[in-house]
Amino acid sequence: MARPTPLSGFPEWLPDGRIVEQHVLDALRRTFELHGFAGIETRAVEPLDQLLRKGETSKEVYVLRRLQEDPAASAEDDRAGQLGLHFDLTVPFARYVLENSGHLAFPFQRYQIQKVWRGERPQDGRFREFTQADIDVVGAGALPYHYEVELPLVMAEALGSLRDIGVPPVRILVNNRKVAEGFYRGLGLEDVEGVLRSIDKLDKIGADAVAALLVAETGATEEQARACLELAAISGSDDSVITRVRELAASHSVTSELLDEGLEELGALVRAAAERAPGVVVADLKIARGLDYYTGSVYETVLVGHEQLGSICSGGRYDTLASDGATTYPGVGLSIGVTRLVSRLLGAGLVRATRPVPSAVLVAVTSEETRAESDAVARSLRSRGIPVEVAPAAAKFGKQIRHADRRGIPFVWFPGAVGEDGARGADQVKDIRSGEQQDADAATWEPSAVDWWPRVTPAV
Amino acid sequence: MARPTPLSGFPEWLPDGRIVEQHVLDALRRTFELHGFAGIETRAVEPLDQLLRKGETSKEVYVLRRLQEDPAASAEDDRAGQLGLHFDLTVPFARYVLENSGHLAFPFQRYQIQKVWRGERPQDGRFREFTQADIDVVGAGALPYHYEVELPLVMAEALGSLRDIGVPPVRILVNNRKVAEGFYRGLGLEDVEGVLRSIDKLDKIGADAVAALLVAETGATEEQARACLELAAISGSDDSVITRVRELAASHSVTSELLDEGLEELGALVRAAAERAPGVVVADLKIARGLDYYTGSVYETVLVGHEQLGSICSGGRYDTLASDGATTYPGVGLSIGVTRLVSRLLGAGLVRATRPVPSAVLVAVTSEETRAESDAVARSLRSRGIPVEVAPAAAKFGKQIRHADRRGIPFVWFPGAVGEDGARGADQVKDIRSGEQQDADAATWEPSAVDWWPRVTPAV
Repeated sequence: MARPTPLSGFPEWLPDGRIVEQHVLDALRRTFELHGFAGIETRAVEPLDQLLRKGETSKEVYVLRRLQEDPAASAEDDRAGQLGLHFDLTVPFARYVLENSGHLAFPFQRYQIQKVWRGERPQDGRFREFTQADIDVVGAGALPYHYEVELPLVMAEALGSLRDIGVPPVRILVNNRKVAEGFYRGLGLEDVEGVLRSIDKLDKIGADAVAALLVAETGATEEQARACLELAAISGSDDSVITRVRELAASHSVTSELLDEGLEELGALVRAAAERAPGVVVADLKIARGLDYYTGSVYETVLVGHEQLGSICSGGRYDTLASDGATTYPGVGLSIGVTRLVSRLLGAGLVRATRPVPSAVLVAVTSEETRAESDAVARSLRSRGIPVEVAPAAAKFGKQIRHADRRGIPFVWFPGAVGEDGARGADQVKDIRSGEQQDADAATWEPSAVDWWPRVTPAV
Repeated sequence: MARPTPLSGFPEWLPDGRIVEQHVLDALRRTFELHGFAGIETRAVEPLDQLLRKGETSKEVYVLRRLQEDPAASAEDDRAGQLGLHFDLTVPFARYVLENSGHLAFPFQRYQIQKVWRGERPQDGRFREFTQADIDVVGAGALPYHYEVELPLVMAEALGSLRDIGVPPVRILVNNRKVAEGFYRGLGLEDVEGVLRSIDKLDKIGADAVAALLVAETGATEEQARACLELAAISGSDDSVITRVRELAASHSVTSELLDEGLEELGALVRAAAERAPGVVVADLKIARGLDYYTGSVYETVLVGHEQLGSICSGGRYDTLASDGATTYPGVGLSIGVTRLVSRLLGAGLVRATRPVPSAVLVAVTSEETRAESDAVARSLRSRGIPVEVAPAAAKFGKQIRHADRRGIPFVWFPGAVGEDGARGADQVKDIRSGEQQDADAATWEPSAVDWWPRVTPAV
């Protein structure tokens, strides 16, 4: 077998990169659990007809076929029984809630950290397999608005817990479907989705082109188009944002209960965020992505200084996350694109692991006959929680030290030599970075806290 | 959408079951890392031609197709570029080693905890998606025998770390390909694979039927068949096993260097295990499964008292785990079937989680206007690492207490009432199990260690 080459879109990390990813996952999990989110996992597959309920994503689904299955069967239009890999964690979560509603206490808040797959065309250079970390709260019948305030703040805290390893600060951009829809309808524009689609192109094609698009595609007048652009230009992280939207609405004689409701919600979010995570949450009225399917708040998150990476954490409020006919389950949630984040951290050299292996100590082996002595030292250290490996072979000590060095292991342990009288001399431990070597007792010695486990730190 | 039903072969857990599974995964990871194994993850897919290199597994592979792909293309015999889901973690690990050999220090020891998929027919009632936890050590060119002793002992320690949650003790059954092959060849039987296939049926069809099979299918004489059965009948956890095999070989005039080499290895394993994990490792000469592809030691692991569950942790030694033509990579490893284990623990009611949510405390909300006070209490507790959630609504306290009770949360926190003078009274915390309620300060109060996080304990 010749050396294999990586598969485009399926990222993998070397051991030191995996330590960074694992640190990120552990830190997110801890924040989610501190906030009472229960962890669940769902199977990787869903029935194809469930995955295809939203038409837009159909092109991205990987369909499964058992190798021994009749290939003609999978080509048939009849999709009953066919399985596809999930492309997000929301569809499976909605199904899980319906399937287990009798066993869950609502509002049910869960986190879910799993791989998802999208059958993107390879030449797009996008990830086809990546890890998401989602939090959602789902209610049975109703879900209070305050969760729309809390969930982005939980994510701000989770991402904030990564600051000390070198993750840049985040900015969470928020908008509210009710504000946009209320404003557009109040202006007299009924094609709300059409307006949102045009506004979504603002960053790409600029205000004048969007204005032209609004006129051409949504039947807006020049004045209505300009009003939409004025709304989209409003952003800020305090209550003044709400005032400016109200003033804009008044200047266009827009009155709308929906707009008022949306502004009240958006205002509550901005005020709570200003108190609990100052500077992190910014109301940005041009955020349009997702407003076609979210029904209230919508969130996007950028790394400050790395905005061109796009949103690394998005989400929003659904009035109907799931429904079994009898009960409707509204929900609100956000999803971190962990792979995109980690890929950026590693690719831009922002973070590093202090070593690529867990071991703090390599126990040298004096001779294969006395390997059991080295094993006993290792057991003693491990019994006190110190990660240890034993040298692969009783090579010359210089070679064993080089083995530790190549693996980034900071300490090499030398079992005491047995003298002519049969007594074993004192063990010694060497810090191979400083060269310092001293007597040590496997029952009591310990590495410093910073050397105990591999750590993840800013690379600078 | 009607209530969905589970998909056969794709197990999922409720939140309390997931806590058990997560505990198992965390405990395994800790033991693996204490022994210096580096964690890696590989992508879920491999090129189909790599997955099908061993013909026998072909029937179990799930093949992927992008939904928008021409279905006819995937039906073609040309498999180039086709992807399948991995059915174990060994094939992807071998590929990872070859792909990254220039960046790894050998012997490279890694653990890998991931889902795998097998396209079993649904009616078999077997898992089609399950989690494996693998450890392997791989050398470049050579790999010393002592790893064949160490790796099963690492697994014994990992599984032993689960004893305190109610996992039964394990027994690791070991055999050695060299012993079996050397003995059979020494007897004059050349169809080693055929003999192993027959011996593998011993538990199912009994000794007489296996003897008949050996005569009919491998050309053995009655006496040769009986000798094979005598070998298979030998088991034990000390050196006497080796002696008995030697005596058996002598009584049949079998001499074989391969047999001698195998017995030396098996003896070393049994002796080391007797010292380091007394009673856990048993040499069992009838273990034949896997001996057709492993080249040295082979391992199977049963839960004592649950032997009918089959092996929950298997593995062995490969002389050629991977090869790029220039270098051959021998390896030794074992794989725990985590899903099978957890499914058994939950299904048989052996273990339970003390609660299904992380939260130790529910902070009650007196009125929606003062929700910020409850949020502040929660933040204060969380800042000291206590998992907390805030009540979903300012319902009557009795209802909020019932909400906590339904979620298994042990403590409810009541922010102090604000008196007519505007001053806030003392907060109180109630243990809803005992009913005991007392004044508490969010800056200093903490739950007892056993209540802090959900724990996993024996169910009895």
